[in-house]
Amino acid sequence: MNSKIIDRREHLLGGSLSLSYSEPLHIVRGEGTYLFDVEGRRYLDCVNNVCHVGHCHPRVVRAAHEQMQRLNTNTRYLHETVLNLAERLSGKLPDHLNVSFFVCSGSEANELALRLARSATDRRDVCVLEGAYHGSTGTLIELSPHKFRGTGGFPAPDHVHVAPVPDGYRTAREVPPPSRAAHFVDLLETTLSQAAARKRPIGTFLAEAMPGCAGQIDPPAGYLQQAFQVARAAGAVAVADEVQTGFGRMGSHFWAFERQGAVPDVVTLGKPIGNGHPLAAVVTTRAIAEAFDNGMEYFNTFGGNPVSCAVGLAVLDVIEEEGLQEKALATGEFLLAGLRSLQRRFEILGDVRGAGLFLGAELVRDRETLEPADSEAQRLVEYAVQRGVLLSTDGPGRNVIKIKPPLVFSQADAERLLETIEAGLAG
Amino acid sequence: MNSKIIDRREHLLGGSLSLSYSEPLHIVRGEGTYLFDVEGRRYLDCVNNVCHVGHCHPRVVRAAHEQMQRLNTNTRYLHETVLNLAERLSGKLPDHLNVSFFVCSGSEANELALRLARSATDRRDVCVLEGAYHGSTGTLIELSPHKFRGTGGFPAPDHVHVAPVPDGYRTAREVPPPSRAAHFVDLLETTLSQAAARKRPIGTFLAEAMPGCAGQIDPPAGYLQQAFQVARAAGAVAVADEVQTGFGRMGSHFWAFERQGAVPDVVTLGKPIGNGHPLAAVVTTRAIAEAFDNGMEYFNTFGGNPVSCAVGLAVLDVIEEEGLQEKALATGEFLLAGLRSLQRRFEILGDVRGAGLFLGAELVRDRETLEPADSEAQRLVEYAVQRGVLLSTDGPGRNVIKIKPPLVFSQADAERLLETIEAGLAG
Repeated sequence: MNSKIIDRREHLLGGSLSLSYSEPLHIVRGEGTYLFDVEGRRYLDCVNNVCHVGHCHPRVVRAAHEQMQRLNTNTRYLHETVLNLAERLSGKLPDHLNVSFFVCSGSEANELALRLARSATDRRDVCVLEGAYHGSTGTLIELSPHKFRGTGGFPAPDHVHVAPVPDGYRTAREVPPPSRAAHFVDLLETTLSQAAARKRPIGTFLAEAMPGCAGQIDPPAGYLQQAFQVARAAGAVAVADEVQTGFGRMGSHFWAFERQGAVPDVVTLGKPIGNGHPLAAVVTTRAIAEAFDNGMEYFNTFGGNPVSCAVGLAVLDVIEEEGLQEKALATGEFLLAGLRSLQRRFEILGDVRGAGLFLGAELVRDRETLEPADSEAQRLVEYAVQRGVLLSTDGPGRNVIKIKPPLVFSQADAERLLETIEAGLAG
Repeated sequence: MNSKIIDRREHLLGGSLSLSYSEPLHIVRGEGTYLFDVEGRRYLDCVNNVCHVGHCHPRVVRAAHEQMQRLNTNTRYLHETVLNLAERLSGKLPDHLNVSFFVCSGSEANELALRLARSATDRRDVCVLEGAYHGSTGTLIELSPHKFRGTGGFPAPDHVHVAPVPDGYRTAREVPPPSRAAHFVDLLETTLSQAAARKRPIGTFLAEAMPGCAGQIDPPAGYLQQAFQVARAAGAVAVADEVQTGFGRMGSHFWAFERQGAVPDVVTLGKPIGNGHPLAAVVTTRAIAEAFDNGMEYFNTFGGNPVSCAVGLAVLDVIEEEGLQEKALATGEFLLAGLRSLQRRFEILGDVRGAGLFLGAELVRDRETLEPADSEAQRLVEYAVQRGVLLSTDGPGRNVIKIKPPLVFSQADAERLLETIEAGLAG
């Protein structure tokens, strides 16, 4: 049925673009938490964190349309929209994070964060966490073990230092839970001091507060707080990559770093910020912005244009007016409880973790050896899509089921998801 | 009047963002070739090449709105819009350029072009032209002499090789015009062979067919054709950066590289492709796309989404249906003739160059020494904005008046621009 469009795609687009599912979906419409294929079949979307406030949210669509009719130009002219968005973002962040830069993608945001940190420290070396993914540019692929350790990869370049990911389930079972944060902070300190000993002091520590591609890892409480302190003590700038986790998805907090009590010097924002519109941002301190302002203009052709910023403002409005952070908290807790209940019944469900609507369910063949149940995870995803529920896998073992739906995901949606996972695991 | 908004901007945005004009404009509306400030004052826009088919073109706005209401998601699902846009772009390019990748900005496009070329050659060294600007990421700033030679700059990194820009006016007056292309190709060959001799063979030759930030340079006819051949003979991939110059702006050709008879291996597209919407693309050969497809997925969250692609298709439709390439040719020739007439009357107008609606007028204090008339150029730009005409300067001497308006720029608009320049030079 889809063979003609798949054939066109193979001829027209690069083969390194991938398609989801063994029978790819030809999606033509989106609404709320649902996607619809060309045959009118409806899918419950449990994976697209980009369409954060729901696919095609009318308020966001209207904001874009109104501004597109009026003006879409660059930041070399004065415009209030970019200032209003900067003000709203600063208002959501700790007081010291009050200078914004607007760009077009999470990759551009992380690229700019690196430039900011380099200006502030005059150091080029970067420390990241094992399994991280930070973007698609050449520099960011080199900072993404998720990519360079995999197929078509390469050894870590000399300026890239990889600290262990704070994965309490898989790598620190021997450590008592209350000591795990300190355990992983010690390992980070070792990475930092080894780099310094090799005359490669770290200028940037770049980390997600809840590492996504590493397998929806939920670090031990307080890890990132201490990690940022340790990195700063070593002279590095601490960058929180909130591209996947920000904007209320955590439920308990607006940003994932807050849930860890961490204090970043720079935060990078992407995916959900524009509900699918190409918008991203970097927010930093006055001191770091001033170190960067060395006489070289920073210009981003599309970044901060009035349409993108009107979209960003509408997304913030919807999150607040529809109480989506609170909804993520309630629905997320319901889902977590449901998954934990399944975990008691199904041996293969080795771990269930996360917060709000950013959850992971790790499938293992043996709860002692933790052998990744990758093909089983893949089968569960394929089972779910056949039943109209969209999931995906991630993590180095490809055995973690990711759950990160639009925040409008309802209790009924959560029940349906749990039933589908239960049936898939039972079947 | 604008002091409050300027003050907010200074507090909320990074200081390395610049504002145009000594009295910055508070622009709130755009239509066709006009921008309107908050007081309702109308400005003839002669500089914004991004809003290629005219500010807020209703057809483009409608295409975005219709698609935003239906679906905006990523390329891991099948969708026809991205394929239709890829097909249309391939149809506009030489047959061998038939595999497309969609990204969000010209920077992301050039970043991906570098990754493609590295995969194909296994070489990391890059040759660019003096004065070039290729984007705002860390890697691209290092490949942009326009940036790294200026304030806040740094020495060229070891992997960056800079060949002389083929500026016949400023650096090759002693060479008879028919020999100038060969002269600059020889200089490029020297750069390439010196790099090879230092065991740093070039993997990528990245060039604009009509270098913009270098000062709207119009290379001697055939330069880029030979330059790409020479680069390829040295084992490099030839990348044409069409981010500023593509989509009919040249008038005589749809792409600037065609006007030079050049055959690129990769082209990068940006600014005008989405009329201001954050969209960009890379088009390459099947062989290069396959070398890149080594098992590492390439994914761009927003790149190739249905909204961006619907916008890209609408822009192509408008260019064709409104005959904008032909219009650029006619208006551009009228403008060039008018500027050349002014050049005969005003000694300071040292050179007039370009094609279609991508023109440059270089101001010099002395036609022999070519001393850049930078403050005079700045004064002319300020004079024009006072009279409601938007211009800007560029080039290493900041003495080149850039003219690159939306292509809907009319004969009457051109007459008004010429009158303004004439009055400014006379005044």
